Amino acid sequence: MNRHTAHELSVAGTASAASGRPQVVIVGAGFGGLTAALELAPAPVNITLIDRRNHHLFQPLLYQVATAGLSPADIAWPIRRLVRWQRNVRVLLGQVSAVDRVNKRVWMDGRAIPYDLLVIATGASHAYFGHDEWAPHAPGLKSIEDATEIRRRILTAFERAEMATDPDLRRWLLTFVVVGGGPTGVEMAGTLAELARKALAADFRAIDPRQARVVLVEAGSRVLPGFSEGLSDHARRALSKLGVEVATGRPITRCDSEGVMIGEDRLAAATVIWAAGVAASPVADWLGVSSDRAGRVPVGSELALSEDSDVFIIGDVALVEDADGRTLPGIAPVAKQQGSHIAKVIAARLGGRPPPPPFRYRDRGLLATIGRRAAVIEYGRLRLKGRLAWWLWGIAHIYFLISLRNRLIVATQWLWSYVTFDRGARLITGPASSASRPTK
Amino acid sequence: MNRHTAHELSVAGTASAASGRPQVVIVGAGFGGLTAALELAPAPVNITLIDRRNHHLFQPLLYQVATAGLSPADIAWPIRRLVRWQRNVRVLLGQVSAVDRVNKRVWMDGRAIPYDLLVIATGASHAYFGHDEWAPHAPGLKSIEDATEIRRRILTAFERAEMATDPDLRRWLLTFVVVGGGPTGVEMAGTLAELARKALAADFRAIDPRQARVVLVEAGSRVLPGFSEGLSDHARRALSKLGVEVATGRPITRCDSEGVMIGEDRLAAATVIWAAGVAASPVADWLGVSSDRAGRVPVGSELALSEDSDVFIIGDVALVEDADGRTLPGIAPVAKQQGSHIAKVIAARLGGRPPPPPFRYRDRGLLATIGRRAAVIEYGRLRLKGRLAWWLWGIAHIYFLISLRNRLIVATQWLWSYVTFDRGARLITGPASSASRPTK
Repeated sequence: MNRHTAHELSVAGTASAASGRPQVVIVGAGFGGLTAALELAPAPVNITLIDRRNHHLFQPLLYQVATAGLSPADIAWPIRRLVRWQRNVRVLLGQVSAVDRVNKRVWMDGRAIPYDLLVIATGASHAYFGHDEWAPHAPGLKSIEDATEIRRRILTAFERAEMATDPDLRRWLLTFVVVGGGPTGVEMAGTLAELARKALAADFRAIDPRQARVVLVEAGSRVLPGFSEGLSDHARRALSKLGVEVATGRPITRCDSEGVMIGEDRLAAATVIWAAGVAASPVADWLGVSSDRAGRVPVGSELALSEDSDVFIIGDVALVEDADGRTLPGIAPVAKQQGSHIAKVIAARLGGRPPPPPFRYRDRGLLATIGRRAAVIEYGRLRLKGRLAWWLWGIAHIYFLISLRNRLIVATQWLWSYVTFDRGARLITGPASSASRPTK
Repeated sequence: MNRHTAHELSVAGTASAASGRPQVVIVGAGFGGLTAALELAPAPVNITLIDRRNHHLFQPLLYQVATAGLSPADIAWPIRRLVRWQRNVRVLLGQVSAVDRVNKRVWMDGRAIPYDLLVIATGASHAYFGHDEWAPHAPGLKSIEDATEIRRRILTAFERAEMATDPDLRRWLLTFVVVGGGPTGVEMAGTLAELARKALAADFRAIDPRQARVVLVEAGSRVLPGFSEGLSDHARRALSKLGVEVATGRPITRCDSEGVMIGEDRLAAATVIWAAGVAASPVADWLGVSSDRAGRVPVGSELALSEDSDVFIIGDVALVEDADGRTLPGIAPVAKQQGSHIAKVIAARLGGRPPPPPFRYRDRGLLATIGRRAAVIEYGRLRLKGRLAWWLWGIAHIYFLISLRNRLIVATQWLWSYVTFDRGARLITGPASSASRPTK
């Protein structure tokens, strides 16, 4: 595309007609949307990749930013940088608010972006099961801002405890609750316990950070419910060994500035971290179609709407079942494979070729790390735990990071932390907390 | 100090009496305050080190965070971590608001912290010469939040330009003004020009980032006025080579949402960065003493108040002249040497020994980098410029970074950027800009 005329075409709505190539608009540059864009490189299309962030985020390691192990830039890449040399993609930074399926255009910040084919890959955000009033008390972990906010709250709690003279106040400040026993909750709780017991242990004078309580609350009967029971048990034992209290079988019934209610019991805690529920972005509303309770939109074997085969839905917003009728989980490998699949569907359709075989998820296994040298891996019938699983987990995550630079930096940081037990990114930044204890 | 009784003493105001050791309170953990605390390690004192941030910041590299080359944690360290093994120091996170010299205590967030000896090392912040209304339009560069805010503004300007269709609007978005021709302004302008011309060049479709205008405005007759004229000239030429327009001899007379006025001329620019003036923190008010126009408090040869020899003032807040009657500049080597000096004064005084010789600044030279392989160094009569100066500048800065970990990470990031021209930390984070153009 000619650099000097591109701007005239860009947002004016005449791009398709002018260039003659079909316009593919992809909303969301997460694992699904980015994979779709990259795999459409050879296709004779013009791609517009829209995201409200300028960066693609490696969410599986976001908890390490929240616990001061990694810097945000270690796990995020400018989207533009990733498609720099792919001349059939343009990237727009903006917030999509509606889709007009009749006139085939997407509304972004008051502008209309025309499409011939539309890919919705907007992901999910954390959800509070109808209790949005819990949000200020229990931040979730989806964006870099979320992670630095949680980091700020955790580190500030220790700082305030150091200055507190009332033992009750200090106990409240040193109690941390993680809500949700899935991989994110388990990783968060384990890493938080290690932070208190290792990295911070020698740094305070009035308090002993090793006295901090970390409580992981899971409403179901076991942590890591997606894994087999044996690995769940292993994870629970590994967490206990790190000093995490695991409370299963009762849901959180209340979150406020004092702490939480677990079932009928109150647990006073200054810091509550939400790793429990997610809800898909409101794409069903945009599209005028129905969704399940979590906001996911059912799609067919081509991952397109049954009402409109020009609209594809992938990743956490798509409701897709595997061969056994189970809903596919909202994890990176599912989104990537779906992104790859629709790239094939689109290329075949435009080339007048028959469509590829229906989408089928190839299980890439489940991984979760609990702490230093403890992890669980489930890959089909293969089940791994402990030290070997932990090393494999680390290698896999370094491998999946995009770009050599980030692999180098993350490997250096991890090696450093492994040898020294230190955490390199213990920064309190951002506006001062407005959440101080109302009473006492 | 016994961990389990420490909290009872901590903020209650009885520490001095209880432990029997003199209480040294240091306000500010920048280069001066931190050096004083570290060098008082062997002294028979209890030190309270107070800062409103939890981290010590290596300010000389802050502009690299603002221009997406480094991550905040690469140039910042938790203060606690730095004094972890020094048992005579406790660290408090808080904001000092007043000093009561009569009763010898410092007010911090509503608490009284008693002192026997007080060290004020609170540094300076950027100043707008009586035009505080310029602040929202021209952020300065003193904290990590400042740096990430400037990074956000710079990167967002390119993103908005990519989507703009009006050529005037696009030109406005791609004009960047740096106010102030000292080392920070020169480094900022040079790095910003490189960002546009190298790292971003290939990433956009509708705009050519190489068309961005970077204007460095200096009210005086030359950039780097602290250096010799020859090096000033060299810096100016090096900036021009990078594409920076250097405008000297006229001050900024206005800053608003449209841009700036340079003398009588309007320059429309979406992004203005303030690197011009600094003012000391309001310690003269705290202490009830007089100061110069920049807020600096004059001190004697022991760096103590003439009115009160128990109050020391060091770093950017101290007004100290060298042997030739020139005021010492607000740079890291001055602050560090002063911190070291008062540690000796305090140790001598407590040991009943005669005081050390009066403070005299040993010139450590001036360094400024302009861009890739261009820097200037002035060390006494030695003057260096160009490639060798640039390598020395890099080695010196790696060397001065605290901790092996940060040296490793920063060296890796720099090596990467050097080889690839890439910038690793191109993240737009934080709240969305409210500063959009009022007209057009």
